[in-house]
This record gives sequence, structure tokens and C-alpha cells, in this order.
Amino acid sequence: MIRINENYLKLKASYLFADIAKRVNAFSAANPDKPLIRLGIGDVTEPLPEVCVKALHEGADELSKRETFKGYGPEQGYAFLREAIAAGDYASRGCVIAADEIFVSDGAKCDSANIQEIFAEDGLRLAIPDPVYPVYIDTNVMAGRTGKNVNDRYQGITYLECTPENNYVPAIPDTPTDLIYLCFPNNPTGAMATREQLTAWVDYAKANQAIILYDVAYVAFIRDESVPQSIYEIPGADEVAIEMRSFSKTAGFTGTRCAYTVVPKKLQAWDLAGNAHSVHSLWNRRQTTKFNGVSYPVQKAAAAIYTPEGQAQVKEKTDFYLENAALIKAAITKLGFSCVGGDNAPYIWINTGRDSWEFFDLLLNKAGVVCTPGAGFGTCGEGHVRISAFNSRENVVNAMERVAAALA
Amino acid sequence: MIRINENYLKLKASYLFADIAKRVNAFSAANPDKPLIRLGIGDVTEPLPEVCVKALHEGADELSKRETFKGYGPEQGYAFLREAIAAGDYASRGCVIAADEIFVSDGAKCDSANIQEIFAEDGLRLAIPDPVYPVYIDTNVMAGRTGKNVNDRYQGITYLECTPENNYVPAIPDTPTDLIYLCFPNNPTGAMATREQLTAWVDYAKANQAIILYDVAYVAFIRDESVPQSIYEIPGADEVAIEMRSFSKTAGFTGTRCAYTVVPKKLQAWDLAGNAHSVHSLWNRRQTTKFNGVSYPVQKAAAAIYTPEGQAQVKEKTDFYLENAALIKAAITKLGFSCVGGDNAPYIWINTGRDSWEFFDLLLNKAGVVCTPGAGFGTCGEGHVRISAFNSRENVVNAMERVAAALA
Repeated sequence: MIRINENYLKLKASYLFADIAKRVNAFSAANPDKPLIRLGIGDVTEPLPEVCVKALHEGADELSKRETFKGYGPEQGYAFLREAIAAGDYASRGCVIAADEIFVSDGAKCDSANIQEIFAEDGLRLAIPDPVYPVYIDTNVMAGRTGKNVNDRYQGITYLECTPENNYVPAIPDTPTDLIYLCFPNNPTGAMATREQLTAWVDYAKANQAIILYDVAYVAFIRDESVPQSIYEIPGADEVAIEMRSFSKTAGFTGTRCAYTVVPKKLQAWDLAGNAHSVHSLWNRRQTTKFNGVSYPVQKAAAAIYTPEGQAQVKEKTDFYLENAALIKAAITKLGFSCVGGDNAPYIWINTGRDSWEFFDLLLNKAGVVCTPGAGFGTCGEGHVRISAFNSRENVVNAMERVAAALA
Repeated sequence: MIRINENYLKLKASYLFADIAKRVNAFSAANPDKPLIRLGIGDVTEPLPEVCVKALHEGADELSKRETFKGYGPEQGYAFLREAIAAGDYASRGCVIAADEIFVSDGAKCDSANIQEIFAEDGLRLAIPDPVYPVYIDTNVMAGRTGKNVNDRYQGITYLECTPENNYVPAIPDTPTDLIYLCFPNNPTGAMATREQLTAWVDYAKANQAIILYDVAYVAFIRDESVPQSIYEIPGADEVAIEMRSFSKTAGFTGTRCAYTVVPKKLQAWDLAGNAHSVHSLWNRRQTTKFNGVSYPVQKAAAAIYTPEGQAQVKEKTDFYLENAALIKAAITKLGFSCVGGDNAPYIWINTGRDSWEFFDLLLNKAGVVCTPGAGFGTCGEGHVRISAFNSRENVVNAMERVAAALA
């Protein structure tokens, strides 16, 4: 008799987006003439940069002729893209990352979900933020690294609390952990860690022979030159950190699909007997066995981002969303709420001072604006909502006028 | 201290393709004027069908405008593609498969690697062919379902031997197993199972409450109308089988990346307490948590295959490779070797009557032709080599002339 992976039964069903949809549908049915403005979802709305569209066309044309046809490519990504990333995202910031330390993939969701596979199942001590992108937690539950869910928290995880008191940048745990998930600029809060804070995390990881999984999917929104864009700007981080990036938010690739993960060759993990092993080799084995590389035209499109025109177009798109974010932040602040994010991130995290679903309902029913209740991202999300800057200027301006009127 | 997944240490390093490359490079260095013909690799050489190129261009154009831009799509694939597959690959063959039982992915390699995650880790009895596509085995080793590798076989796997005696279609085990990997038309042998043989496997799975993972990546090469194209042509298979297909070999998508897996809603697996669970729900949970859908232009390109022009273009490409296969099979047979495959598959599996590496060296050094030694696919591959029909007509004709001269 074939048996299931019973760890799946531990997963707490998330009704967040289903609940949102239900309430939104009920509102729309009752108010057919009142158009909704959706600022809940973390998906881009602006078209692909022109350089990417041009590269997609060129890639399609190459696939149409025998002489330029591309079959299986390297599982790790084409050299042209890995080299463009190493130069454009790392050498340009003074980080020594070689092209063959970069693994191109079809999404940061996949990478952040799959990376745990190469580490031990038993006895791995996890440190995961709260609130958080749910994939970090759910994939570890599915792999059997946690106990039951009790009061919205899984047994066996050290939750890194992000609260108004620490300005949503978690404190370093006072006990050792082994695998630490960090995300800056943060989803959902939009908070950013300083160089000093990141240095302390790197020191902590070194002291404990731990590894940091550093998710920088929102790096393209950083405008404050004093904060690191890469964890490898912190000396020694290449001995303790894996970094994940995506073209989804950088260049509107949410439907085009391309991302990458950096696994430095210096990075080590140990077996029970105490022997050190190369994490780069383990991830390479995982990827070559379970993945077959990213679509060729998509890799061409991603590489186009690193041309001067590509960089200018990315800047223009992300500036546009950041202008939206500034409008939202100003409007919310004017209404007397405290909030973070929006400066170096496309999300604004509002401390509502009340139940997050109650605030969601208020914005929906009084303003016709959809946000995301913070409780959906974890216990510490309670009392907050996330507003996303991914929308047209007109919708953002209109939404903030409606919110101001509703809360007046 | 962070520890590794020690199951990776059990993996027997495969030097197959590295060994081939080493010998090929040595030959090329010693014979700079003798051009090699490569019939070793399982990768297509003909360009994408025109309908797919056109659809890629249209997809790129849609991504270039705000009105038609596509962000995150459904993790399971767009309805337009799932519906085209349900109609074109299943309803057309009399199989009742609903669009929402089809999960679109970026590759059959990924799906066949990931599917084991939803089943139990401990006590799962695996049945895997020998010779075999190595991913089926390696992913189960990495998940901890096997013991050590002893004499080229992992402890804890029931190997399904494919030999000249059974015409390379394995016999049903005389003991119960839980998860059974089958692939027809087979890689590497090119052998095809009959309707009666598949029916016996379905009956065996039912009797044992087992699940068959049926890999039909080479379905587009089936020309014999008497053999099933889908396992769902066998009555009751939708209660015991998951089917995986790919556009890689069907339409030259090895570098474009699209595939799909069918998980019928009737399919069940059990927990330790004996409660039945929907395998469809488990796979849906896995995919929505760890995967973010296939690139939109690529899904458009895949859907174009199901138009009448698309079907004609796919037939033309696969006919071309099958003509190559027929030439190879005729030439090899004329030389007095027995072989299978080539009729409903792009591979010819030659029973060489000697050590497979010795035969590889003979073809390389005397004919300048590269094949794949059967021993690389498992113990039962010894004594065989695989020749692939993926090449130009000119190269195939030339290669067979050289092989004939070398073996004369």
C-alpha cells in the first residue's frame, strides 16, 4: 500500500487569499457600481522592459533555425547570463562572486523552497522571521523538520519576531541555530537592515557554523546607498551565506520566470562525523539531478537587463513603483498611522492599531481598496496590513483619496 | 553546526558523460582532420515548429504592453494550455482526463524528480527499471529511500530487469511494491509495451494499492496504432497511475522547457492510520508551494502544438527522426546485430555481444561515431549501446556508412 508523506498533514491550511477573495466577491456583488482598487497583491503591473522584449524575440528567432537552434542548455544557466550577473550585480559592488557560483533558475520561490533539501532533515535548527513569506516555513514542514502547528506556530522553529519595537528588523537569537532565513528589503514589511545589522548576523552565523539564506528579491528597489544590496558586501559572508535574487520584481518577470541563487564555493556544511562538505557541490548535484535549466529566450531576456539600456529601463520601472510607494506612505502617515517600508521596497507595512482583518474590512467596505491583512504572514503580522505599490499611478492616487475619505 | 543531507553521500558518482567526453576529446586531439558524428546524446537538433515560434513572438508582444501584460500565472498552468492538452492528448484517445488534472511544468525531469516528495520516506517499496533514466533512482537516493550502492545497485530497490530474454519489457515482480516507475517508449532502449503488458501492470498496481509513474516523454514517436499512447487507455488506470509527458521530444522544447504531469482525482494514497488521501491534492499543494508556473510565452508556444498546423508540424519533425531511426536500425541489423527500438522511439538499443565500453571505443576510434555505452544506464545495460536518431539525415547516413566499414 502506497503511503503519503504525512508531514503534509501538519501544514496549517492557509485561507488568507481565499478569505480575501470571498470578502472581495461579497463586496463586489453588493456594490456592482463601485470599482475596486487592488493594492493587496505582490505582482507587477508594468510591461517588460523593451530590451527584454527584444531579446525574447531574438531568442525565438534563434530557435526557428537549425543553425542557431538551442536544445538542452547547462542546468546552471548559460555562461553569458551567469557572467553578466557576476559583473553587473557583484563585481560592480566590490563583491568577489565567480560566474560559476551563480545558479540560474526559473524562480526565487523554487530556489527558496528547494534549497533546504541539501541540508539534514533531523536536528536542523531553523530560524525564520515572523511575519514571513510562507514558503520558507511550509517547505520545512513538508520536509519533516517541524512538529505540530500550535497557536499558529510550528514546534521546532525559532521565530525571529519583527515588531514595532525592533523596527521590524529581528534581533539575533540568544541560542544557536543552523539555517537562518532573512529577507531584505523585506516581504511583507518593506523594512531594510543596515550594514551593522547584517554584519551582526554574519558574525552570528560564523560563530555557530550556521548558514544564512539571504533573499534579496526586492534589491532593485534599494535607493539608500548606505545599505548593502548584497550580503556579500559584508566581509566573510561568502563563508556563511547563500543569496537568492529574482528578475520578477527587478524587471517584471513574474510571468516570464527567471531568478538565480549564489552558492559560494567557500561555503561548507558538515556530516555527522564532522567532515566538511562543499555546499556548492551539493547544490550543483541537486540542480543537475532535478532541474533542466531555464528557457533559452528567457535567459537572453534576463541578460539584456545588464546592458546600459537595460539598467536604465529597470531603474525607470522601479522608480515608478517607488513613486507610488512614496504617495502611499505620505497619505498613510498623514492619516496618523505609523508605517515602515516604501523607501527601499514596494511594500508599505501599516501598524493599524487594531485587528488586521477588521482594518482590511474597513478599507474594503468604506474605500473599495483591497490590502493584505498582516495576520496572514504570521503571528507578528497581527495589527498590521500590507499595501503594495504595484499598480497604475491613477489607481494609487485614487485609492489614497478614498482611504483618506474613509478614515476621516 | 549545519549538517548536510547525508543521503547525497550514498549517490554513486556517474562518470558516464565525463568519461565519454574524455575519450571523445582524446580521439579528436589525435585525429584533428576526422570529423566526429555524435549519435550519443538524447537532444533534438531540428528547430522549433513554426507555430511555436510564432506563438513565442506573440507572447513576447503581449508582455510588452500594459493592457496584455501577464504577471504571475496559475502555478498549475494556464487554462488555455491545460484544456488544449485534455482535448488533444486525452479526449482524442477516449481518455477521460479533466483539464484540472493536468499540471503544466518546466520539464518532465523536474516532475519525475519531484513527484516522490509527496509519498512516504520510510518503508516505501520502489520498483525501478534497469537500464533506466538515472533521475528516477538518484532522487529516491537523495530522499533517503535506499541503502548503500553495492555492485552498482542500491539496497532497497526492486530492479525491473529489461533484457534480451524479455525483449526489454520487464516482468511484473512477484512481491508487492508501492511506487513503480515505467517509461514507454523507453529511454534508453526504445522498447514499447503492449496493451496487454500495460494492463497487467495496472492490475498489479490495483492489487497492491500501488502507484505507477508512467513516463511517456517519447509518445510522439509512437506509430503503431495497436499500442497505447497513454496509460489511461487502460481501464482503471486513473485509479493507480500518474502520467508524465514533455514537449521536449514532441516539439523540440529541450531548450524551451515545457512539460506536464497528469494526476487523476481518483488517485489515492494512505496514511499510517489507513486513511485515504487525494494524491491530486498533495501534488497541488507541492506545486503551489514550490513552483510558480511556466513562462507565459512558452505556454503559448506549447498550446500552439495542438492546432491542426501544429499537429502537422510535430508529425513532420518526428517522422524525420523516425526515418533516421529506420536507417540506423536497418544498417545495424544488416551488420548482424540484434536491436530494439527505432520503430516507435528515437533510440536504437543494440545488443553488441561484448563489453559496452569496448564497443563504444570501437565505434569512436574506427568510425568516428559517438554512441552511449549501455552500462551507463544500469547493470542490465552492459553489453548494449544506445544510438540516437537525433541528427541531420546527412550525418546519420554518413555515420552508418562509417560504422559498416569499421565493422566489416
